[in-house]
Formats: sequence, C-alpha cells, structure tokens
Amino acid sequence: MVKVIMHGCNGKMGQVISGLITADPDMELVAGIDARDDGHNPYPVFTDIAKCDVAADCIIDFSAAVAVDKLLNYCVEKKIPCVLCTTGLSEAQLAKVDETAKKVAILKSANMSLGINLMLKLLKEAAGVLAPAGFDIEIVEKHHNLKLDAPSGTALALADSINEEFDNEYEYVYDRSTRRERRPKKEIGISAVRGGTIVGDHDVIFAGADEVVTFSHTAYSKAVFGKGAVQAAKFLAGKPAGMYNMSKVIDAAM
Amino acid sequence: MVKVIMHGCNGKMGQVISGLITADPDMELVAGIDARDDGHNPYPVFTDIAKCDVAADCIIDFSAAVAVDKLLNYCVEKKIPCVLCTTGLSEAQLAKVDETAKKVAILKSANMSLGINLMLKLLKEAAGVLAPAGFDIEIVEKHHNLKLDAPSGTALALADSINEEFDNEYEYVYDRSTRRERRPKKEIGISAVRGGTIVGDHDVIFAGADEVVTFSHTAYSKAVFGKGAVQAAKFLAGKPAGMYNMSKVIDAAM
Amino acid sequence: MVKVIMHGCNGKMGQVISGLITADPDMELVAGIDARDDGHNPYPVFTDIAKCDVAADCIIDFSAAVAVDKLLNYCVEKKIPCVLCTTGLSEAQLAKVDETAKKVAILKSANMSLGINLMLKLLKEAAGVLAPAGFDIEIVEKHHNLKLDAPSGTALALADSINEEFDNEYEYVYDRSTRRERRPKKEIGISAVRGGTIVGDHDVIFAGADEVVTFSHTAYSKAVFGKGAVQAAKFLAGKPAGMYNMSKVIDAAM
Amino acid sequence: MVKVIMHGCNGKMGQVISGLITADPDMELVAGIDARDDGHNPYPVFTDIAKCDVAADCIIDFSAAVAVDKLLNYCVEKKIPCVLCTTGLSEAQLAKVDETAKKVAILKSANMSLGINLMLKLLKEAAGVLAPAGFDIEIVEKHHNLKLDAPSGTALALADSINEEFDNEYEYVYDRSTRRERRPKKEIGISAVRGGTIVGDHDVIFAGADEVVTFSHTAYSKAVFGKGAVQAAKFLAGKPAGMYNMSKVIDAAM
Repeated sequence: MVKVIMHGCNGKMGQVISGLITADPDMELVAGIDARDDGHNPYPVFTDIAKCDVAADCIIDFSAAVAVDKLLNYCVEKKIPCVLCTTGLSEAQLAKVDETAKKVAILKSANMSLGINLMLKLLKEAAGVLAPAGFDIEIVEKHHNLKLDAPSGTALALADSINEEFDNEYEYVYDRSTRRERRPKKEIGISAVRGGTIVGDHDVIFAGADEVVTFSHTAYSKAVFGKGAVQAAKFLAGKPAGMYNMSKVIDAAM
Repeated sequence: MVKVIMHGCNGKMGQVISGLITADPDMELVAGIDARDDGHNPYPVFTDIAKCDVAADCIIDFSAAVAVDKLLNYCVEKKIPCVLCTTGLSEAQLAKVDETAKKVAILKSANMSLGINLMLKLLKEAAGVLAPAGFDIEIVEKHHNLKLDAPSGTALALADSINEEFDNEYEYVYDRSTRRERRPKKEIGISAVRGGTIVGDHDVIFAGADEVVTFSHTAYSKAVFGKGAVQAAKFLAGKPAGMYNMSKVIDAAM
Repeated sequence: MVKVIMHGCNGKMGQVISGLITADPDMELVAGIDARDDGHNPYPVFTDIAKCDVAADCIIDFSAAVAVDKLLNYCVEKKIPCVLCTTGLSEAQLAKVDETAKKVAILKSANMSLGINLMLKLLKEAAGVLAPAGFDIEIVEKHHNLKLDAPSGTALALADSINEEFDNEYEYVYDRSTRRERRPKKEIGISAVRGGTIVGDHDVIFAGADEVVTFSHTAYSKAVFGKGAVQAAKFLAGKPAGMYNMSKVIDAAM
Repeated sequence: MVKVIMHGCNGKMGQVISGLITADPDMELVAGIDARDDGHNPYPVFTDIAKCDVAADCIIDFSAAVAVDKLLNYCVEKKIPCVLCTTGLSEAQLAKVDETAKKVAILKSANMSLGINLMLKLLKEAAGVLAPAGFDIEIVEKHHNLKLDAPSGTALALADSINEEFDNEYEYVYDRSTRRERRPKKEIGISAVRGGTIVGDHDVIFAGADEVVTFSHTAYSKAVFGKGAVQAAKFLAGKPAGMYNMSKVIDAAM
C-alpha cells in the first residue's frame, strides 16, 4: 500500500488525482495540502504543509510555483520522495530542486502523459536522422482559452529534448511576422494556438524536401496527466535520493 | 481564342502558367513580360512592358510589387483586363488598383486555388454561426523554408474574410510568448510554420466548448494556383470595367 | 420555464443532460424514464413510460431503438414534442416517426453538436462547387473501441447530406481491399477507425488535382451532444406538429 | 563514380530517377531497360534485359512484377547488386528474391522515402511501450484515385513492422461495416482513402485512454521515393551478397 500526500489537493489536477488514488486498491491518500479548504475531501487537509504530521511514502505536487520552496523543505525534513509537476519555477527554485534531489528522490516532469513521454524519447532519434538530412523542425501546440502562458511547458520540453541532441544549437522562434527572410536552418519555430476547451495538442513537424513527418499527441482529458502522476508515485516510493524522470517510469513498466 | 500576355513570364508561376496556356486549345500566349529574359520561351518576351505592342484579351500577372505601377498604366492605355496576383502592394498601389478598375476589368486575388476561394466564402457563414456561440477563431499556415513573408497573404485573406462579417472587430495576434493572460475574445491568432518544401497548407480552426471545427486546405503543387489564374483570365476577357474576384469566377462556373 | 422529461435518463447521455438541465435556470427536469432505476436521481423516474403522468413541454430521448415505439405513442397521446436522438431505427420505426410528426413536433438528429450541424449545411455548398470540378469525396470517422456500429450514424448523415444534392447518385464504399481498380467517380469512401476512448472525430475530404479541402469536427466530450439536445428542447417547446431538424435550431439562434 | 542501370526506365519513377542520377556528379546512368522505348532517353535502352551488355555497379528497379524474374537472373549472372522497388511479387517470386540474395546484394523496400523508413523503426519502439499500456493501433492511408490496390504496400509494411514485435498476433481489418461488436484488442484496422492526386499520406494511430499518439507521413511528390532509391544504390554498390533494407542505408548515413 503506497501512502500519498496530495500537494495542491483542491486544484483541478489535485481533485482528478484524489479520484484516481481512491479507486486504486494499492494506494491510499493519507492527507492533502492546500491554501484553501472547504472540508469536502474525505482525507485530512492542511492549509500549511509545515503542520502536516501524517506519515507517507510519496508526495504528488500539482500546485503553484510560490508553494514549491516550502514543499522541498518538507520533503528533505521528512525524507519523503516527491513527484513534482508544477511548472514555471524560477532559476533559483530549479537550483533548489537539484539540491533537494541530493537528499531525497525527486521526479520532475512538465507533462505526465505516457504519450508525451514516449515522444520525448523518440523525437531524439528522429531528429538525429532527419536534421542531418536537411529537415526543418517546427512545433505547434494548442490549448484552451484560459491558459495564461504560451508556449506550453510541454512544447518547450519537446523542443529541449531535440535541442539537447545538437548541443543546444537551435534557437526558438515565436513570431515571424516582424522579419522578412528565408527560414534560418538552426531554428525551431514554436506556435501557440489558443481556443475553446482544448485540453492539449502537440505536433512536432519535420519538414524536408517533398516529405513531412509529424508526431502528434492529443489529450482528451486531464485524467491522462493524473494517471501518469499516480504511476510515478508508485515508482518513486522507496527509491533512493536522486533526480528521476518519466522515461524511467516508462522503462520500468515495460 | 483568348489571347493572353503573361506579366512575370520567367518566374516560377509565369512558367507554370505558360505551360497551362500552351496546353489549352482555347487560349494563346501571345507575349511575355519580364525584366530578365534568356530567349527560351516560344513566345516574344519584352523586358519593358511599354514596348509590348501585341494585341491581347487579358493580362495575367505574377510579378513583383515594383512592377505593378507600369502594368496598371499599360492596362488603362491598351484597355486590357488584368488578373492581378502579385501580393504585398503598398497602400498607394492598392488605391491605384481601385482607380484602374474604374477604367478596365481587374480581378485581384491573393490565392487563385478553387479550394481557398470556396473557403473564403464558407468561412463567413461558419463564423456567423460559431462566433456568437462562443467559438474562438485561429489560423495556422505552413509554407516552405524559402518564403520571405509571414503570415502568408492567403492566411491574412482568410482572416479578413471572417473579420469583415464582424465590422473588423477582431485583432490579429502573431505572438503570445510575450504576454501572460487569458485569450481575449476578440482576437484571431495567426501562426506561421516554415519548413522544407511545403507548397501551402492553411487551417482555420473554430474552437468551442468541447468541440472543434477545422477547415483545411492543402496545395500539392503550384499548378493549382496557375489553373485558377487561367480560368480567371477566360472569365475576365471581354468584361466591362470593374473590380472582380475569384468568387465570381466560381459562381460563373457553377 | 421549459419542463422536460428525460427518456433514457440513466444512460450516459441521460445523466449528462440531467446535469445540464439542472444547471439551466430556464429549464426544469420534471421526470425521467428508464427501464432500470436505483433511485439516485433527484426527480421521479418511471420504468414504464405509460405510467408517467407528469406534465411537460418537451421530451428529450437518448434511449434504445426498442423503446422508441412506446415513446412515440406517448408523445401523440399527451401532445408533447420530442427531441429524438436514438439512432439505428428500423424502416418501420422511421415511418412511424413520420406519422407521429403529423400530430406533434418531432426533431430528429443523429448528432446534436452545433459543429456537425453546421457542417451538414456547408458540405452541401462545398460539394456543389467541388464535385463538378472533379474533386473526389471521402469520409473518415474515429470513435472509441466500445462502439458497436460502423460507420457512425453521423458519418452516414454527412454522406447523405452531400448525396441529396446529387439525386443520390453516389454509392458508399466501406472496403477497397477486395477489388483492384481505379476509384470510380460516383462513390464516397467511408472509413471507420476505432480505438481508445475517442469521443468522435469526423473528416470530410474533398480531393482534387493538386489540392485537398478537408472539413473536420472533433468532439472532446459527450457534453457537446447534450448541450445541443437541450437547445433543441427549448426551441421545440410550443411548436406546432411537424418534422424539425437541428439546422432550424441553428437558424433560430442567429 | 557509381554506374547504374535503370530497370523500368520509361515508367514515372524511372524517369524521375533518370533525372536525379543525371544531376548527381558521383553517379552515371549507363543503360535503361524497358519493354517500350521511343528513343528519347540520353542513354542506351534495351527492351530485353538479357541483351544488356553494359557494365554497371548497381541496378535500380521500379518495374512490374512480371519483369522481376528475368531481372533476378540477370543480377546473378552479371554479379550486380539490385535495389528492388517493385511491389506485388508472388510467393514464388519472394522466395526467388531470397535465393538471389545469397549470391548478390539485394535491397528490397516498399517505400524508399527517408521518413517512412524512419517510421518503420520508431513504430516498433512506440508499439512496445503503448500496446502493453492498452493503446489500440490503427492505420489510415491516402492515395490518388488512379491507384489500383488498397491498402498500400507501405501501409502493410508499417503494420507488419509493428506486428513482428508481437509474434504476428494482430489481425488486419479492412472493413467494420459488416459486423456489430466492440473492437477486438488484437486487431489493426487499416483504412484506404482514395482521391484526387494525393501522392501518399500515412497515419499510424495509437489510441489510448484519453490520449492519442499519431505518427504521420506526407509525400508531396514522387521525387522523394526516387531520392531514397538513388541513396540506396550508392550504398549497395560493392556490397557483398545478402538481403539489405533501407534502415541500413539510414544507419550508414548517420
């Protein structure tokens, strides 16, 4: 039985994950943390993580950047591994995450879906073959009209995954309307479409001479992100200190 | 027999259209105009339009903005209708086009394909139903890596076609990476993808609550633009002065 | 206040619509009908429609073909209009629906989403222009792996909508693996993809010489069908006898 | 300088490849073989391969199944490697290909494009992760209206590439309209769309719970297949006897 604390339990993803853990006979949601609480959850909720004294095997985090420092302190103090899903962390916070991973197990991911994590891996291989053959690389992502940031953290993670293969030679371009020139070879165009309730679409496009290869991912509900987080928590419970990522969860599942 | 002068005869589209007219038993290519000429065309080529003294029923133009003023003067002087396909005209030139259309027949179009011209028409109807129901409107276009401008003239024409239905209330947005906010209702996002040899793809996306309607057009070769220009020339020959567009050619063909 | 009886209230769509009506201040769900009931609904449920004695302005039906005959009898007897969404009716049942519409208002639709109903209308116009120009017409639909029938009722409705414009000259083709020949001009290929939890995607493809126009609809949840049914019920309440369809609801909303 | 004999030199692909080799300073087209010849090629053409006495380093074949037996005999007799691109071979012919590969180098491929050959490789990895996680696998291919066979040889090659990873447990399904049942787990649906002049589109779809991953390939001209064949010929010249495939060409190019 894997005991989980849900950090950010009253957000959309927190509620999705609460439902998934409740339905899983091998897991137990022992406590929630959230700045706001109306008492509707069937588990104890703490508005201040420092006051949470419930023993757990793993924390799942879908909160906000502002709450992450206290979370990391708590993980170190209590020796609890953490699945860290909040994006938009500052440079200082990213450094603190790295420090924390020297003391407890941390799995950090911009997107928990199996499909995106597989794509992160296959894209490296694809780019390794297609870029030297002259293919241009472009990313188009689509999300709902309430999303504040653009491009999505997932689109950036996809681009980074490719760029790492090429010593980060590629520049990311978000706007071509202000210039008038042929496409430079060493750029990745990233376009952000916003509309309706689109959960999250990502296309990675390799365009060559007379042929185009496209890798597409469509999410139909937020549950798909929750499911990955729950798998990650099961994987991380009991693991030694270190920085983990979803590709290790996928490899372990095969 | 419709006699045609090809303005910009040595460009890519000029050559495509030369081939189409040669293959059409009802048409004759009587002369070409181009700043450069190596004598390879089977018809007389003039490097200065003012020196062209060949009688014709219509001019087809795929040239460069810089050549359009002299072209319009010529049309008025010789009383020849003109299918005007060059884009990127200045405000002054657009005004001159309007003036010219008071004296001879002018058909102006950013994209001569049947598919795009049908979309220009149907999008107005779609937007009239979907926008009041809360759907957001977005456009994604894709072109080859040699294209200088972004977004494409066709993407802008598609957006304008919708915007006209709403008293031009919508603003066009080309970059969302520099802001951090929910999508404003009255905007149309236009994204430009560049890569490989893509001839021209255009998606117009209406994204609503839990449903998305998309109108897509893919061109597989430049011939598709040439074919429309040739149809337009046949239509325009003998027409009285006035401003025409491709939707009239389509209506006439039905 | 529009009073609604939900026929098939304990099915997936019945529950979706119950939620939508409860949230709508202008509507009231006064009774449900379902062969099975566990008493969890906040409104009275009748396992036999003949025993339902609650006054209502409209019935919304998402049930099974087997239950439709009794439903139609009830509508006539009680003089209540009906939004009829069950598909797979027999020829005899379709005839009975026509008879019923002479006595009360009936709105019958294979797909209640605004997007699909708009497409049904625009496709007629598109086919009228593109088919004479030599474009071939194909439909690809995608649904979840539990769907029993193929192709979907919606795909057939899209094909029928086009075919009506051409005196039903087109034949529908579901399998090309057993023949070896060039594509006949007067056919519409309809392909059915099945997998995962896909709610419902429909692509109508017009493929011509060097250009392709595609109309696509993606549903992200069943709520989109429920919303259309609720709009239809509001529209139908108080209407005289006759056969109605969703395009009238859309026109009325504009 | 790699000397090439083009088998099937007067077909569409034969002419495309003639052009590519002529433009390549490292290659020479020394002879063509074709049942019909009008003398327009700049190289000697033999209507009977047995009479071709020109020395060469490799043969490229895009002909018809009926011509393949004599071709294989010739390769053995003259000890010339062969890039074999004709599809639709009989079982007996496939066996003869295997025999021939014991004596000379043979590279056999249903699709010579870099993109498709990369996909053949990545799909194995993707299926290995996604199928055990419950994803369903579907293929949709689109080709022009003159194509006689369906589904395409490339679609079958993509399906086979996946199926090999699972001991060929999957059945291929081309028509779902004649049954009424939930999708069986161990099937791959293959849909064939035909229309216009579409050169060749292939989508491989992995549909899971609330997420879909799609690998797409679009060809914009036949040149893309020719380019791969030319690369393969360069690779194969001088290689020892054996059966080769495009993935080895790709690996060698990296």
